[in-house]
Amino acid sequence: VTAEPLRFEDGALLILDQRALPGEERWIRCERAEQVAECIRSLAVRGAPAIGIAAAYGMVLAGGELPADREERAAAAGQRAGDLEAAADLLRSARPTAVNLAWAIDQVLASGDPLECARRLHREQEAADRRLAALGAERFEPGDRALTHCNAGALATAGYGTAGGVLQAAWEQGRLAQVWVDETRPLNQGARLTTWELERAGIPNRLVTDSSAGTLLARGLVDRVVVGADRIAANGDVANKVGTYPLAVLAERHGVPFYVAAPVSTIDRDTPDGASIPIEERDPSELGAGVPAVNFAFDVTPAELVSAIVTEAGVLEPPYDEAIARVASR
Amino acid sequence: VTAEPLRFEDGALLILDQRALPGEERWIRCERAEQVAECIRSLAVRGAPAIGIAAAYGMVLAGGELPADREERAAAAGQRAGDLEAAADLLRSARPTAVNLAWAIDQVLASGDPLECARRLHREQEAADRRLAALGAERFEPGDRALTHCNAGALATAGYGTAGGVLQAAWEQGRLAQVWVDETRPLNQGARLTTWELERAGIPNRLVTDSSAGTLLARGLVDRVVVGADRIAANGDVANKVGTYPLAVLAERHGVPFYVAAPVSTIDRDTPDGASIPIEERDPSELGAGVPAVNFAFDVTPAELVSAIVTEAGVLEPPYDEAIARVASR
Repeated sequence: VTAEPLRFEDGALLILDQRALPGEERWIRCERAEQVAECIRSLAVRGAPAIGIAAAYGMVLAGGELPADREERAAAAGQRAGDLEAAADLLRSARPTAVNLAWAIDQVLASGDPLECARRLHREQEAADRRLAALGAERFEPGDRALTHCNAGALATAGYGTAGGVLQAAWEQGRLAQVWVDETRPLNQGARLTTWELERAGIPNRLVTDSSAGTLLARGLVDRVVVGADRIAANGDVANKVGTYPLAVLAERHGVPFYVAAPVSTIDRDTPDGASIPIEERDPSELGAGVPAVNFAFDVTPAELVSAIVTEAGVLEPPYDEAIARVASR
Repeated sequence: VTAEPLRFEDGALLILDQRALPGEERWIRCERAEQVAECIRSLAVRGAPAIGIAAAYGMVLAGGELPADREERAAAAGQRAGDLEAAADLLRSARPTAVNLAWAIDQVLASGDPLECARRLHREQEAADRRLAALGAERFEPGDRALTHCNAGALATAGYGTAGGVLQAAWEQGRLAQVWVDETRPLNQGARLTTWELERAGIPNRLVTDSSAGTLLARGLVDRVVVGADRIAANGDVANKVGTYPLAVLAERHGVPFYVAAPVSTIDRDTPDGASIPIEERDPSELGAGVPAVNFAFDVTPAELVSAIVTEAGVLEPPYDEAIARVASR
């Protein structure tokens, strides 16, 4: 039942247009890196790990196939290096907050074989998701009711899901009774994507407005909050979809554990803290109200509010600077 | 520029259909109490004080005019009392949370003259709004940026506005630079009604998603939060549009004053605390996602998070039980 947000086939990247979900399954065929960058910018594909993998395949499209003939190959290699650098700049600038994007592009640039590298990152994401999902699920107890925000399932990772993977694994182990899903304004990723994934998996779920978390927590209807991440700083501060920080503040007030689930590739040791994370502001027209608006896409949750960071390399706990230094090489 | 949500003319109550704003100014003509109850239930008219006044005029419609002839008058009086009781039950049950509804109906029942009583409540609301607005504005300082949630302007009170009135008065006194307006899901009263009112008043404003308050506060972009109320319990706990409680928690975390503006008629001393306030759950279809949902219409903010309650009888400060006992007779 796992959703698949992208697929590399016959020299093209097929991207499931998440803007049309759940109403329609529409696939966009990308044959050039520019098309992939546009899909990332416009949120046809979204979610930090998924846009990293999409960008890696975008690099494959930019690099083309080298000629089989050895002399032609040498001549083409110089041209290719330039093409790859240009594509890297384009793809990297598509969205600023998720560090997985730049990370995946750097991986491809450092590799000799873009296609092999992209396929490996894709496979590794799936493995990382499954591993962190299993580790996160261990924190759950039978009957637990979880609250999640935005979408951090398979659609967001091109694997098994981070926060969504934890929920899926907890469900399979009989440790999850129900999921509360935040609508996630303005683009309703919770209402459109997370409920769709949970329904496909047969996991009981209820949608609420983003403003309802306070009521759910105050009434004792939530046992754990679990969210994904777009970038985790060296000190454990977390950038994620706007609305995550208020959830963390409310969870702390009500003594409910607040988990962040993310692969190690989402950790950026070059970013010292949350204040250094670039927070994307998107077009105010996304709010759809036709009035002057400000549209923050992400917010920053300080490490002090995070009960644990669930990664494939282990469940990190405070002090995060030390825990992060142990698992993240960058 | 003050918006007028209802008008009693030629023996009928005209209600501005707030569901159609800001796109269209459509008036609904009510000649029977049942029509008024339906307008309240369906949110054509909304806001605690405004639905109280609408219900008062609904009682006028139920009571009809007594015959001028003294004997006929006596005979009609018994019938009228029954009609008024039936209308009171119907109107009272239209929405459960706002106490102004039941309060206004009781006022009419206790009065000998429904029309005189309804007109007086309407006039008194305007006077109360202007008085509390002036008192609340005194708390503002030049350059202040305020955050508000839902709509508590003239549309919500049939007067001058409570939270909206405070903002208007602060603006007129040069103590307000800008208003951040929460979208207010699921029915977008902030996006549709509050921005419309602020634009008409020429007050600079920016719309944000409900989830953005954390970011605004963390970045130091908000100097005061001001909201209305649907019911204030004897201990100072406040029921207001869902999303108010998270705002209060965030405001406290960031040391920003959190004001509740409401007339004394919103205080219910018969309700000891927030846990005793009935919280309306509305049709999940209001979320518009076509999936199972829970739609809390209100939440409860504990008194400890409220910096001040701005009423026409004075600005109340903790301990609220004592302050409330001084100003509220009920």
